[in-house]
Amino acid sequence: MSNRTLIRGGLVVTAADEVHADVLIDDGRIAALAAHGTTVAEGWTADRVIDATGKYVLPGGVDAHTHMELPFGGTFASDTFETGTRAAAWGGTTTIVDFAVQTRGRALREGLDAWYAKADGNCAIDYAFHMILSDVNESSLKEMDLLVEEGVTSFKLFMAYPGVFYSDDGQILRAMQRSASNGGLIMMHAENGIAIDVLVEQALARGETDPRHHGEVRKVLLEAEATHRAIQLARVAGAPLYVVHVSAEEAVAELAAARDKGLPVFGETCPQYLFLSTDNLAEPDFEGAKYVCSTPLRPREHQAALWRGLRTDDLQVVSTDHCPFCFTGQKDLGRGDFSKIPNGLPGVENRMDLLHQAVVDGHITRRRWIDIACAAPARMFGLYPKKGTLAPGADADVVVYDPHAVQTLSAETHHMNVDYSAYEGRTVTGQVETVLSRGRVVVDRRTWTGRAGHGLYTPRSTCQYLN
Amino acid sequence: MSNRTLIRGGLVVTAADEVHADVLIDDGRIAALAAHGTTVAEGWTADRVIDATGKYVLPGGVDAHTHMELPFGGTFASDTFETGTRAAAWGGTTTIVDFAVQTRGRALREGLDAWYAKADGNCAIDYAFHMILSDVNESSLKEMDLLVEEGVTSFKLFMAYPGVFYSDDGQILRAMQRSASNGGLIMMHAENGIAIDVLVEQALARGETDPRHHGEVRKVLLEAEATHRAIQLARVAGAPLYVVHVSAEEAVAELAAARDKGLPVFGETCPQYLFLSTDNLAEPDFEGAKYVCSTPLRPREHQAALWRGLRTDDLQVVSTDHCPFCFTGQKDLGRGDFSKIPNGLPGVENRMDLLHQAVVDGHITRRRWIDIACAAPARMFGLYPKKGTLAPGADADVVVYDPHAVQTLSAETHHMNVDYSAYEGRTVTGQVETVLSRGRVVVDRRTWTGRAGHGLYTPRSTCQYLN
Amino acid sequence: MSNRTLIRGGLVVTAADEVHADVLIDDGRIAALAAHGTTVAEGWTADRVIDATGKYVLPGGVDAHTHMELPFGGTFASDTFETGTRAAAWGGTTTIVDFAVQTRGRALREGLDAWYAKADGNCAIDYAFHMILSDVNESSLKEMDLLVEEGVTSFKLFMAYPGVFYSDDGQILRAMQRSASNGGLIMMHAENGIAIDVLVEQALARGETDPRHHGEVRKVLLEAEATHRAIQLARVAGAPLYVVHVSAEEAVAELAAARDKGLPVFGETCPQYLFLSTDNLAEPDFEGAKYVCSTPLRPREHQAALWRGLRTDDLQVVSTDHCPFCFTGQKDLGRGDFSKIPNGLPGVENRMDLLHQAVVDGHITRRRWIDIACAAPARMFGLYPKKGTLAPGADADVVVYDPHAVQTLSAETHHMNVDYSAYEGRTVTGQVETVLSRGRVVVDRRTWTGRAGHGLYTPRSTCQYLN
Amino acid sequence: MSNRTLIRGGLVVTAADEVHADVLIDDGRIAALAAHGTTVAEGWTADRVIDATGKYVLPGGVDAHTHMELPFGGTFASDTFETGTRAAAWGGTTTIVDFAVQTRGRALREGLDAWYAKADGNCAIDYAFHMILSDVNESSLKEMDLLVEEGVTSFKLFMAYPGVFYSDDGQILRAMQRSASNGGLIMMHAENGIAIDVLVEQALARGETDPRHHGEVRKVLLEAEATHRAIQLARVAGAPLYVVHVSAEEAVAELAAARDKGLPVFGETCPQYLFLSTDNLAEPDFEGAKYVCSTPLRPREHQAALWRGLRTDDLQVVSTDHCPFCFTGQKDLGRGDFSKIPNGLPGVENRMDLLHQAVVDGHITRRRWIDIACAAPARMFGLYPKKGTLAPGADADVVVYDPHAVQTLSAETHHMNVDYSAYEGRTVTGQVETVLSRGRVVVDRRTWTGRAGHGLYTPRSTCQYLN
Repeated sequence: MSNRTLIRGGLVVTAADEVHADVLIDDGRIAALAAHGTTVAEGWTADRVIDATGKYVLPGGVDAHTHMELPFGGTFASDTFETGTRAAAWGGTTTIVDFAVQTRGRALREGLDAWYAKADGNCAIDYAFHMILSDVNESSLKEMDLLVEEGVTSFKLFMAYPGVFYSDDGQILRAMQRSASNGGLIMMHAENGIAIDVLVEQALARGETDPRHHGEVRKVLLEAEATHRAIQLARVAGAPLYVVHVSAEEAVAELAAARDKGLPVFGETCPQYLFLSTDNLAEPDFEGAKYVCSTPLRPREHQAALWRGLRTDDLQVVSTDHCPFCFTGQKDLGRGDFSKIPNGLPGVENRMDLLHQAVVDGHITRRRWIDIACAAPARMFGLYPKKGTLAPGADADVVVYDPHAVQTLSAETHHMNVDYSAYEGRTVTGQVETVLSRGRVVVDRRTWTGRAGHGLYTPRSTCQYLN
Repeated sequence: MSNRTLIRGGLVVTAADEVHADVLIDDGRIAALAAHGTTVAEGWTADRVIDATGKYVLPGGVDAHTHMELPFGGTFASDTFETGTRAAAWGGTTTIVDFAVQTRGRALREGLDAWYAKADGNCAIDYAFHMILSDVNESSLKEMDLLVEEGVTSFKLFMAYPGVFYSDDGQILRAMQRSASNGGLIMMHAENGIAIDVLVEQALARGETDPRHHGEVRKVLLEAEATHRAIQLARVAGAPLYVVHVSAEEAVAELAAARDKGLPVFGETCPQYLFLSTDNLAEPDFEGAKYVCSTPLRPREHQAALWRGLRTDDLQVVSTDHCPFCFTGQKDLGRGDFSKIPNGLPGVENRMDLLHQAVVDGHITRRRWIDIACAAPARMFGLYPKKGTLAPGADADVVVYDPHAVQTLSAETHHMNVDYSAYEGRTVTGQVETVLSRGRVVVDRRTWTGRAGHGLYTPRSTCQYLN
Repeated sequence: MSNRTLIRGGLVVTAADEVHADVLIDDGRIAALAAHGTTVAEGWTADRVIDATGKYVLPGGVDAHTHMELPFGGTFASDTFETGTRAAAWGGTTTIVDFAVQTRGRALREGLDAWYAKADGNCAIDYAFHMILSDVNESSLKEMDLLVEEGVTSFKLFMAYPGVFYSDDGQILRAMQRSASNGGLIMMHAENGIAIDVLVEQALARGETDPRHHGEVRKVLLEAEATHRAIQLARVAGAPLYVVHVSAEEAVAELAAARDKGLPVFGETCPQYLFLSTDNLAEPDFEGAKYVCSTPLRPREHQAALWRGLRTDDLQVVSTDHCPFCFTGQKDLGRGDFSKIPNGLPGVENRMDLLHQAVVDGHITRRRWIDIACAAPARMFGLYPKKGTLAPGADADVVVYDPHAVQTLSAETHHMNVDYSAYEGRTVTGQVETVLSRGRVVVDRRTWTGRAGHGLYTPRSTCQYLN
Repeated sequence: MSNRTLIRGGLVVTAADEVHADVLIDDGRIAALAAHGTTVAEGWTADRVIDATGKYVLPGGVDAHTHMELPFGGTFASDTFETGTRAAAWGGTTTIVDFAVQTRGRALREGLDAWYAKADGNCAIDYAFHMILSDVNESSLKEMDLLVEEGVTSFKLFMAYPGVFYSDDGQILRAMQRSASNGGLIMMHAENGIAIDVLVEQALARGETDPRHHGEVRKVLLEAEATHRAIQLARVAGAPLYVVHVSAEEAVAELAAARDKGLPVFGETCPQYLFLSTDNLAEPDFEGAKYVCSTPLRPREHQAALWRGLRTDDLQVVSTDHCPFCFTGQKDLGRGDFSKIPNGLPGVENRMDLLHQAVVDGHITRRRWIDIACAAPARMFGLYPKKGTLAPGADADVVVYDPHAVQTLSAETHHMNVDYSAYEGRTVTGQVETVLSRGRVVVDRRTWTGRAGHGLYTPRSTCQYLN
């Protein structure tokens, strides 16, 4: 009976239910939920009691798309696993799935081991890995099977970035065929990078070098095209498909059309596409560089389609694609040439709050918030019900959330290791108050009580949307 | 601590989760769930312990479309509220929403009171009412507001049956406008009855009088047309829409197109459309009459579209449209004239089992089974989370389900008051073992322990899909 | 060799070809075309030679939708067959197809004979009739067959105007079935009049009585709905369908979807939808009444979809729906109640010029101009190649058109018997110079040389798009 | 008055009109058409009078897709310009547009000159050239402008055949951009060759070496995908697009969707896709090799979509893709390895007859026959009205066609230089009787009177569908 925690009096919100229930945690897991005020609940005792009256009690967030310490364009994403997972926890996220990277010409194993090493002992919360395939060949295809067995059950391919991460349609087809047989899930960066690189070259030749041109050359039609192509290749392979960072209305339409046919096609968007736009990319004095990521921010009118897709389940997941680069010293590598700006935004700390704001704004319901931020990513990537819900037996990754607190997002107060906030000065309603990771309090009424190394590597089963 | 029941060792399946948990029931409600085998769970005691080892523990089914004792075509549906709700319970359904009927020229109140009277004291399980609007006019529009306040929050309109239940597009528009302001939900029988009646007359004039002609004249295109029209009228009114008994692929396509636009449009199908077809309508010796209902059974190839719609959430609910007429003495009113065959099938007892068979057959997942049969209808019609889920605080409507039992459906063994089964001789895997209604065992290891009058009228809030 | 006319040196433009050719007319028909400047052409002699150098030589326009002297809302369209056909000729139109009207409760024959009588001896150009079915019943269905044989091969039905012209879906289906067997073509006014009348009543009750509210209550969605419904009913009947005065983008989309399926569905739009908009309906001081017609004018952004439909052949015909009512004494019947404004616009004189302006503006090609204004309506309604083209053997209905003349449209100069122009003050490039009807010059270098009674009734074959 | 020919008494059929007219030819061109029996017509005299009573008088066919003497897979298409154009004339085709080929690493000019040389002095009928771009680079892009000026106004790119003709999406985009500015038209072989080559390799590895596997690996989805991609790239470039040899229903759907948006996207199909199917590819004893071409033959059910596309104008042109290889000595290069079978079918002689059979069978109208086979290809490729119609001033390329003759297609009787017929033994109704090329009779009542060298190279203007 040692090590029991009781969270009392809150409104437990999951993807499915909203109930006034007390939550009993024992030995790092959810032991039981009882209706608040019943004799059962009243009878419970614990070492630690957290009063959640007037608060939400949520499953910890699952961010299925982060890039800690990613090497990109001659520099590294500025958050380490230590700083990045701490910031995640501060923001109510208790699991990340980061991307290990295969180096071209090298084995998946080598890349994966490097990422294990980077993360090991440094994480404040639990973590898992996807694998980026930079070099699809006979050998790496075989390694995919081993990784699936080991718990690395998803593989990212790029239709963009020729010469770096790019796979051609033949490599994509082969990887999809392999995943169809080994149960893995292909995650796709869907942009026609070959065509985009032509437009980049032409824009630069015309002297269009500012950050906003990054948005202009990476055209909506070329995201939609690649999305369509990836879907067709997946159909040929008989494989499921997960499209990352969907940003354009036309790409959502491709997903919706595929899903109407009953195809196992899934889509993720990110807070930056929901809350930012090409207006940000056009900010003067090179400030637009802060918002350079790929797929790029889109004109404001695309946001409605993304919200609609989240409501209609044509998009299932909101991840961050967290990949921070400091404005000073990193983003400015691209002054005078937007194509040299490192691609990526910070966001792992802001996701749960921004999506709660969407609840306040009426874009989504409270349950859908938890679905797209916790349950769906956990199911998509084989972590459910260990992660993503509050149910007896689940890991006690719990957030006590104050829905009435008002906060202003700012680099001054955030915990990510980056010198700017993409949401600087934005006021949102709702704030994380207390966070537990496997039963251990890591944020206690907005005081840090966690530690690097508490977080454990978590192997994953295969996608749970497919059976 | 009196009146406690503990269900131990089963797999609790809800629309969202599958967990090995013990369920503690106190005073008719779910008091708590605890992970099986934990010290908390082990510590629980109860007056009655149900061993669910190797079984599923499910929320009781919610059948949102039944017609007990419905007057139709000069006769009455053969199940009373007593026989019908008992059969429902045998089949694992613990809540029905039946349709009170407005008589043309009379008040809604009068019809509703008549249905209250029919059901009162007779039901084995809880029940609620929708209201059929047969006569939309200034007076009945005003009454709608009162009914919504009273807990009758949904209203059925017919685009078919001219001269009986039919409303014209102006009446439909007015009722939708009213529901847009009072929070009610319009349920639509979507068939172009005006056009169909022309085809009926022409078929009879050609001597096409057999039951199979019922299916031929009620054309797929005329269901799709009416579905489209209802959606457009709802858009004009700014109202949500729920289309009942969707049977045709083309109608599903209309719903899918509307939902892709983000419109609040919902659809229900029924087991008969998923498991039966025009092959049944064509059975010789007037046996086809057993399968006469409207919308009609469709050619077998439509079934795939319905299953796909259920998987993609373009259809949300499976109800039965339970409306039984005995083959002898009722269905035979239509010998020599298919248009005189009373429209309707028995099914309230078979729904949960048939849908479990769909799980076995791979059409849907286990969780989706519970979603479409329990959670979604409860949410759609304002009964959630009191009904439709197993969560702390919910009504203890619980089914212990044996997923391995094999049974053969037959009129010889069913409990519905009708002389035939639409699924006679069909063998399915899975069977209800024990059923609780608000904590009281009404079926105990396949022995009836319920009683007429236990079931209570349950007022409903408005549709929970709209916020 | 008497009565020969030679048109020399012009550019002959038909729906298919543009050639520099001399046109030889003999005995009221096109005898021959010869390449200009060849010895054959040079060798020709004639009683009259028209020099068309620098001009276009066009087939005379075919306006397939006019309402001369139509009784509507207690008054009559202000153009008689005499004034209306003269104005048509001035505008380069040499054939009209007007609508005979069945009175409810009376025979088609009676209505048709009344229209024969109105037109007989009064027309300056050739004319034919469609029949409006106001009362579809066994008797009128039988009469349809007779009319088809007689050369009245198209029948108009209304989904709008309940109590006046309205047919319900059963009547529509029966008429379509009949046309499927007798070769007639159903023309549909596609608006959901039952729903619209509810909105009219509600608008008036709110005090929304101005002309602009006419546009607001007759909603785009209700035109699209009716268009979709008409198409589905036509599919059930196995009949072709021609939708008149398509005005809304969403209605074009319904036609395009049907045509993509290969269905024999056709669409007409009118100059008012291409050149005017709700901005006109909103003109102050009741001036908006000048633009009241049904379907109503739409917001300006619908125009692009109509032009696109004309280019992609999802719309085949531009007619005028010419139905003029004087602003003073007729339109003002609806002061204080937009629903009492007689529905209709003058336009028969303006169509060819406005569409030539569309050529100048780049919306359509020169050949498409002649197609949608001459050839397609002639083919659609069984007048080809007698009318609608310039080919050996065709009637010598010819327009010599000056593509460089500039004119300003105005009631001061037009020849229609109505006290306003819907295009008052609009300057267009291009003007009719000389017009021949069956070889006789009726407009000679902008002098009237025609006469009432020259025009002949022209029986029609069935639709030529169906074989 | 020397050199006059008069064709008397036939039914002149063009894309637009069907008239009983006498056709007067003078000096190689159509001088005049006169209504048969008029005094004008009766007055005509000529050196030669052809009696066309009971016959059709047609514009000569324009085959916009032939490959005479094409080097492919280590061999050459078996028809030379001499044999191929003679066969064309026998089949009623009086103009071909063949493909000059750029060799990788060499200039367009070099390839074009080689093709000029091959054709010069050898052709029986007029001819023109498209240019195949095998190597899109700065230099070849610049050359495109020169070729357009010279009359080679269309450029073919391949998304298939990696390592041979294949262009990547960047090259395609650049070529499209160039054509957007110089007025050229990009013709696309739309198959995802990169993915197909993976499937080819896998099929061969599985021992699937027979001709039918050629059809199985070149999947419908990969034609549709490439079609979609080409359309999106054309939208990015702001360029029109012409997709060659469309064979799959899903590819037609992509074209239809693009055209519904008003995009300048065009499609061609070929007789082999309309009349043959995978059943032919599966013929035993390697006979299937006779039908190996790319895109491949499809299952029979795709034919209906192609016919529908031709009727709805989603497909505009029927060409042959004539590229014959003898069964013995050429096709058998691929025994034991379907990927080594030279791709291509003979057909230039059969096109007009097969399409007339489609008229007889009710797939298309007589005028549509002439449109898709004569007028549309002439317009698409800048040859109208010189070619493709019978109008004053046009080249006197005329076919007198006997619509009642019955013939059996066979290698024994055809004039193509290839040892088999793809339509061996097929009986069709209709036959070419007499053919004139620029006024000269080359087939005289089925006797050859033509000569190599009569045919002239014909420079082309740009696509006439774009203004």
